[in-house]
Amino acid sequence: VDVKKIAVIAGDGIGPEVVAEAEKVLKRTEEVFGYRFETEHALFGGIAIDEKGTPLPEETLTVCKNADAVLLGAVGGPKWDNNSKELRPETGLLGIRKALGLFSNLRPAVVFDCLKDASTLKPEVLEGTDLMVVRELTGGIYFGEKFRRESAQGEEAVDTCAYNVAEVERIVRQAFEIAQGRRKKLASVDKANVLETSRLWREVVNRVAPDYPDVELEHVLVDNCAMQLLRRPASFDVIVTENMFGDILSDEAAMLTGSIGMLASASLGEGSFGLYEPVHGSAPDIAGQGLANPIATILSLALMFRTTFGYAEGADAIEEAVANVLNAGHRTSDIAVDKSKAISTTEMGDLIVAAI
Amino acid sequence: VDVKKIAVIAGDGIGPEVVAEAEKVLKRTEEVFGYRFETEHALFGGIAIDEKGTPLPEETLTVCKNADAVLLGAVGGPKWDNNSKELRPETGLLGIRKALGLFSNLRPAVVFDCLKDASTLKPEVLEGTDLMVVRELTGGIYFGEKFRRESAQGEEAVDTCAYNVAEVERIVRQAFEIAQGRRKKLASVDKANVLETSRLWREVVNRVAPDYPDVELEHVLVDNCAMQLLRRPASFDVIVTENMFGDILSDEAAMLTGSIGMLASASLGEGSFGLYEPVHGSAPDIAGQGLANPIATILSLALMFRTTFGYAEGADAIEEAVANVLNAGHRTSDIAVDKSKAISTTEMGDLIVAAI
Ligand SMILES: CC(C)[C@H](C(=O)O)[C@@H](O)C(=O)O
Ligand SMILES: CC(C)[C@H](C(=O)O)[C@@H](O)C(=O)O
Repeated sequence: VDVKKIAVIAGDGIGPEVVAEAEKVLKRTEEVFGYRFETEHALFGGIAIDEKGTPLPEETLTVCKNADAVLLGAVGGPKWDNNSKELRPETGLLGIRKALGLFSNLRPAVVFDCLKDASTLKPEVLEGTDLMVVRELTGGIYFGEKFRRESAQGEEAVDTCAYNVAEVERIVRQAFEIAQGRRKKLASVDKANVLETSRLWREVVNRVAPDYPDVELEHVLVDNCAMQLLRRPASFDVIVTENMFGDILSDEAAMLTGSIGMLASASLGEGSFGLYEPVHGSAPDIAGQGLANPIATILSLALMFRTTFGYAEGADAIEEAVANVLNAGHRTSDIAVDKSKAISTTEMGDLIVAAI
Repeated sequence: VDVKKIAVIAGDGIGPEVVAEAEKVLKRTEEVFGYRFETEHALFGGIAIDEKGTPLPEETLTVCKNADAVLLGAVGGPKWDNNSKELRPETGLLGIRKALGLFSNLRPAVVFDCLKDASTLKPEVLEGTDLMVVRELTGGIYFGEKFRRESAQGEEAVDTCAYNVAEVERIVRQAFEIAQGRRKKLASVDKANVLETSRLWREVVNRVAPDYPDVELEHVLVDNCAMQLLRRPASFDVIVTENMFGDILSDEAAMLTGSIGMLASASLGEGSFGLYEPVHGSAPDIAGQGLANPIATILSLALMFRTTFGYAEGADAIEEAVANVLNAGHRTSDIAVDKSKAISTTEMGDLIVAAI
């Protein structure tokens, strides 16, 4: 059999707890579908700072590069928030994206039936919302030159935002292709009335658009998009945008679904390699208490199956198991209406495993 | 009497219609309170491109500079959207902000009782929402160097984001002062885990914070703020942030109130000078039909009275008149539940004038 290698990065906060449940699910799919996985654990983020003196140790990068895919829990926490830049978990996150060439971040924002009421939006506005933000992940102001200099008005800080044609084209084409596999609508978000990078972005989008005649394209200014997401979320299908705008809009989109604790994400590079992680963070306030909801991480695994391995059967089975467990009324405390009936992280994991 | 000079810029789309109603209100306050205003009209935006070949004619700038305050309707429209950069209304907008030194944009986001149901947010989430976004308006990536260059990956576009200590300090101090006059809470929004300009921003905020010990300060990352605005809008009082983030967040905040057609804004410089305008745009689709709601522009006038002129009595009277007319059930079509009973732009203006 074909053995798939998975680098497992538990990370900080609730990361280890939710990743442990996903690993149980992984095992279960080996039994049921005959898949073969080899997992290798690696240190990353705050724990790597504590144990190795750097958020992204060289060994971790090697483990990831030798793997077919990476499963990441979450990184960061107040403990490291006041560290110098090189000793911060976020620096590791930017480093791993760049080192692994993960130029595309897919952030599906869907509404889970059982969580409809968790949104702060009215149910009738939310009805039918199922969108995907495709965020460029290795360019723009995140990775441009940064420095301080003296100016007549005191110290000055500078960030540089740059995009070249090739960088824009690969993410935009990917977004068009994703749209072709969905409802065939693409919103390209920029600030072309102000930014030069956005004008280049829009030129590239308009140049490649004729190659995807079946996809309906709209250009939306970023400020307007922040509004339209609130006014007509269900009207969006795929949204493609640059790194900084994608950071803001993908979080806004996730939050409006009310399902943020359940959302998976994928960061993809060339080929089939990808890093998969839940959208929620490390939640240090509830870490180690068995309160975390492992579903977003388990669904990230399903996304890995489908996207990197082409294991549609296993992916379907995981997603159905999650749906069945939720439909049977089981809830971790974050999504429980009656908190006294909430089940623990491991109980939720076990139920999903049993349902596969 | 002290004569106040107001530069009146009607602009494009519904701009002329809503500004005309505000001018009637202006006249009325002269009669009732004995104020004296001198208004001078000037061309700006699309209409200035058409008539003068530039969105911001030199004469317009002179009229504004000679005035104590500027009242602006709205600019822009599809007619000019494909123009070259120099011939676009937005270029005029950036130009006037810079030329008049309008470094601070105040965007109050409040929920009007009569519009509670217009929001896509649940009423219980919205309850008590009354926040103000203070946006830096003449720095950052909007005004940094922009250019194209050749790279190995094809043409490359570059935008530069720069902030110096003095620029950050003046807007931050203003935000602290505004918070002191409100509920004494300030959220400073940045992306200090990634951007050098944000790290400088946060340093300055932390350095000046001890001068405002009565204000409760929190730092919020921009992606998190986009989420928290949806989750707990009522918990925010004043939000201060840089130009690009402010563009996005102020529009998100305005939209979530459901009252976007009624919101006023002020752009302030040193001293008492300010430019006042409704938050809504030029709405070319309904221009010239008497459908526009003049209330946001009329409330912008009230904001001008209070902020630039110190005419609290007049400001109160305008705001009360608006409230009374709304409470009596009068609605323009944008806010009418029963559109068949909607009144026109001029009817709304006349009712407000009569109520003062
Ligand atoms: C932690 C931070 C650097 C990161 C980002 O901004 O990319 C995070 O917000 C995310 O979206 O994954
Ligand atoms: C038209 C555009 C340049 C402008 C901005 O981004 O500042 C507008 O969106 C605004 O917020 O006033």
